[in-house]
Amino acid sequence: MAGTAHPSYAALCERIAELADLSAIGGLLFWDRSTMMPAGGSDTRAHACAALERVSHQKRTHPEVGRLLAELEPWAAELDPDCDEARTVRVVRRDFEKARRVPEDLAADIARADSLGEDAWMKARSANDFNLFRDALSHHLDLRHRYVACFDDFEHPYDVLLDDFEQDLRLSELRPLFSELQAALVPLVASAASAGTARRNVLAGTFPAGDQRAAVLEVVKQLGFDDEHWRLDPSAHPFAVAQGPQDVRVTTMYDESDLSVSLYSVLHEFGHGLYEAGVAPAYSRTALGGLVSLGLHESQSRMWENVIGRSRPFSGWLLSVLQKRFPEQLGAVDADTFFRGVNDVEPSLIRIFADETTYNLHVLLRTDLESRLFEGQLTVDELPAAFDDGMHSLLGVEVPDAAHGVLQDIHWGAGLIGYFPTYTLGNLMAAQFFAQAERDLPGLQEDLARGDVGRIRQWLRENIHAHGRKYSSRELLRRVTGEELRVDPLIGYLRDKLTAATLLPAG
Amino acid sequence: MAGTAHPSYAALCERIAELADLSAIGGLLFWDRSTMMPAGGSDTRAHACAALERVSHQKRTHPEVGRLLAELEPWAAELDPDCDEARTVRVVRRDFEKARRVPEDLAADIARADSLGEDAWMKARSANDFNLFRDALSHHLDLRHRYVACFDDFEHPYDVLLDDFEQDLRLSELRPLFSELQAALVPLVASAASAGTARRNVLAGTFPAGDQRAAVLEVVKQLGFDDEHWRLDPSAHPFAVAQGPQDVRVTTMYDESDLSVSLYSVLHEFGHGLYEAGVAPAYSRTALGGLVSLGLHESQSRMWENVIGRSRPFSGWLLSVLQKRFPEQLGAVDADTFFRGVNDVEPSLIRIFADETTYNLHVLLRTDLESRLFEGQLTVDELPAAFDDGMHSLLGVEVPDAAHGVLQDIHWGAGLIGYFPTYTLGNLMAAQFFAQAERDLPGLQEDLARGDVGRIRQWLRENIHAHGRKYSSRELLRRVTGEELRVDPLIGYLRDKLTAATLLPAG
Repeated sequence: MAGTAHPSYAALCERIAELADLSAIGGLLFWDRSTMMPAGGSDTRAHACAALERVSHQKRTHPEVGRLLAELEPWAAELDPDCDEARTVRVVRRDFEKARRVPEDLAADIARADSLGEDAWMKARSANDFNLFRDALSHHLDLRHRYVACFDDFEHPYDVLLDDFEQDLRLSELRPLFSELQAALVPLVASAASAGTARRNVLAGTFPAGDQRAAVLEVVKQLGFDDEHWRLDPSAHPFAVAQGPQDVRVTTMYDESDLSVSLYSVLHEFGHGLYEAGVAPAYSRTALGGLVSLGLHESQSRMWENVIGRSRPFSGWLLSVLQKRFPEQLGAVDADTFFRGVNDVEPSLIRIFADETTYNLHVLLRTDLESRLFEGQLTVDELPAAFDDGMHSLLGVEVPDAAHGVLQDIHWGAGLIGYFPTYTLGNLMAAQFFAQAERDLPGLQEDLARGDVGRIRQWLRENIHAHGRKYSSRELLRRVTGEELRVDPLIGYLRDKLTAATLLPAG
Repeated sequence: MAGTAHPSYAALCERIAELADLSAIGGLLFWDRSTMMPAGGSDTRAHACAALERVSHQKRTHPEVGRLLAELEPWAAELDPDCDEARTVRVVRRDFEKARRVPEDLAADIARADSLGEDAWMKARSANDFNLFRDALSHHLDLRHRYVACFDDFEHPYDVLLDDFEQDLRLSELRPLFSELQAALVPLVASAASAGTARRNVLAGTFPAGDQRAAVLEVVKQLGFDDEHWRLDPSAHPFAVAQGPQDVRVTTMYDESDLSVSLYSVLHEFGHGLYEAGVAPAYSRTALGGLVSLGLHESQSRMWENVIGRSRPFSGWLLSVLQKRFPEQLGAVDADTFFRGVNDVEPSLIRIFADETTYNLHVLLRTDLESRLFEGQLTVDELPAAFDDGMHSLLGVEVPDAAHGVLQDIHWGAGLIGYFPTYTLGNLMAAQFFAQAERDLPGLQEDLARGDVGRIRQWLRENIHAHGRKYSSRELLRRVTGEELRVDPLIGYLRDKLTAATLLPAG
């Protein structure tokens, strides 16, 4: 990079580093609220979140950022468009243009409402009463309308929300993609269901929470979790958050009658954490150190939870580790039964516990509901019934109450509207990335059968994690796989696996 | 307050509220670093602390604060000087004048060094090697010299540091007070030691950490700790920090061979927490909601740890609670033996485990060392030996290694120079306040014998906690007790208690 230095580039980077530091603080406020904060601290925390958002917003939209950008853009235009400096200038310009359209008061109001809304959601879910949450949700929607009104260069208002989670994603692209997916999934689910074999959850049994924690830690420590840089805590909704690559925190929940809840949610969150831990060290506290897309992020969590975690070779290794710790509960299970059990297809109520095949139908429903809610085609009061109807028509299950229905997810509580679709994008990309990894790494399946994840972890780091925010998710997908976002690889992968697990008739 | 409103007053309050919110975040960063953060997160956290300090400093020193103050001061001068508005304007002016003398870069450097220094201290203490800490301490001292150089209106440079912890405290006042105290304590310790009765730690034994936690929680829950607003976690050095009155976090450490460590440190930190929880709700997020003085704060922790916690009536109740949980370990101990045991006088190595009588000698030593260090009469490399010499000459104990000597406390690690003296001020004030409480609350001893702390807690809240930062510690002491800061009440109190415990010859 010598010779390309511009005196104002360092000044821009210094401002961005400060923003990255403030953003790390935001991550801690969120993590603490969901894991450690006494319930009574909710109001104080909301004020703290709003204050942090306010100062961050001031820094993001500072006129000096605009001045530096204007000065640097002609310089950057002469550089290799793929060099870090040119990419940095583009990314900062993008963030600046988005942020400066939003008034500081609105940004702070949203941060405060997100914090308070999460609290309202938690109380409503505990009380199993949607009415305790409806005002918070209405307020979120109102704030999002005010937010979208700050912009004018969109095709559909919901696109503005989507863009905050997945850069450049549009509803007009999402709808046909999701239709194609639904058209492929519904018959797949039906034919797996009609296979009609006797189902059982191979991870059901009696598993004390403390033993579960020890077991899942033993697993992830063999995959890359270490105590020097990672934590695992319980929370109402599993998540991962990092304060940079050196401080990665994952959470889970324990169901003492079902080991699969903690096991697969920890593998999932481990995948998120590994992504954050793998961003190139040189990108720490830079514009390229942030996260490019939640879809890409989700492709990494679903990679470990499902594509690796429920594969025949890796699930065999997983079983062998778990059997040592739980000989009574799991000693009699054989590897084929385990593989079949963790891939069983059965429509169910809770998204995060859904099997891999039906999972995307949950996401499709939420995307449909929240976009209609946002467009005003559905009112907040109509939402619970619409949720239940959708579960019935898409998955054929009956929702018994709000806690197992519309209140099950934290997202709408925390104001995360436009977030759900990224889960399905992640599933699509995970299948595409893994297919490429298999092409690049002969013998990968044999590695996984031994629990040896060294090569795949390195491949993910080099090809995906290290780049941070340098490439958009589509660019990265293209660079790694040569493909655009596609439905087929996921469907093909599911069909092959279900067939191998004798959950679908062969051929 | 109606009729006194000034349009700019609300604008000032809004700025102060934001500062209070940012300050709460600082408390969380500290708490998390000391309880939850993976060790590898240290560098990222230091950047976060520096970024937070930078934005807070910008807000504290914003020219608009000066403009609002200049506008409000003539108005405030016409108000009752003790009304909240007049006090607020004075307090904000004081903070503004202090902050604006310090360059932002220096403020951020100090925050970063404090965060990194704590980490260096922790590593040095674990390795029992002062050399791993010396550079961090030198850097702290250098930064403090640069900090003091920002001011010119002091009598002694160390006063500038003192003032950050105890408003208006001066070395010239501290030295005679501490001399008088030392002159009274040394013979008291000697005569208690010469009483020569067989000593034993009544709380020694085998106490698993989990059981200790349950026991101390049972105790403090009867005193006012509740899960809705409080937390208790382990840390390397016990402390308390609050994110406002609704989110109070105390920490402790567990020695499985000695219940007294967790029991009395939790009572101590509970006292700090109760103070923070008791500030008038109307002062939340205002200039009067902050903390006026660490001495006053410490008077509240020592009140619960010692003045109440080691009193004959309350210690009897405490024993009865602990005996139910630890019948084997404590069943045979009678209340007089317990009272005598928890007040036993024996010079020892570790300040935070020191008995109440020798405790202040530890503080006197640290105050002497850090003021000489700061004045350049002592170098960093000479500090460990000077510490050991001081322990020998003041307390007659031999320091075996750095971990039990100069590295035992977190303070110098976290850059807290000028903080130690407030511990002794707290002890002096605690004795003065409690004497007044006894005059105001006839039958208080009988309450405490039943573990009924309702009246004393209310008295502390009304007379001390509720006022937050409205009155300086001296003003408040005068308002509550009619007295100035005095040595006699503490000495008289100790003498009476040691006599009652037959640890001193009667008369």
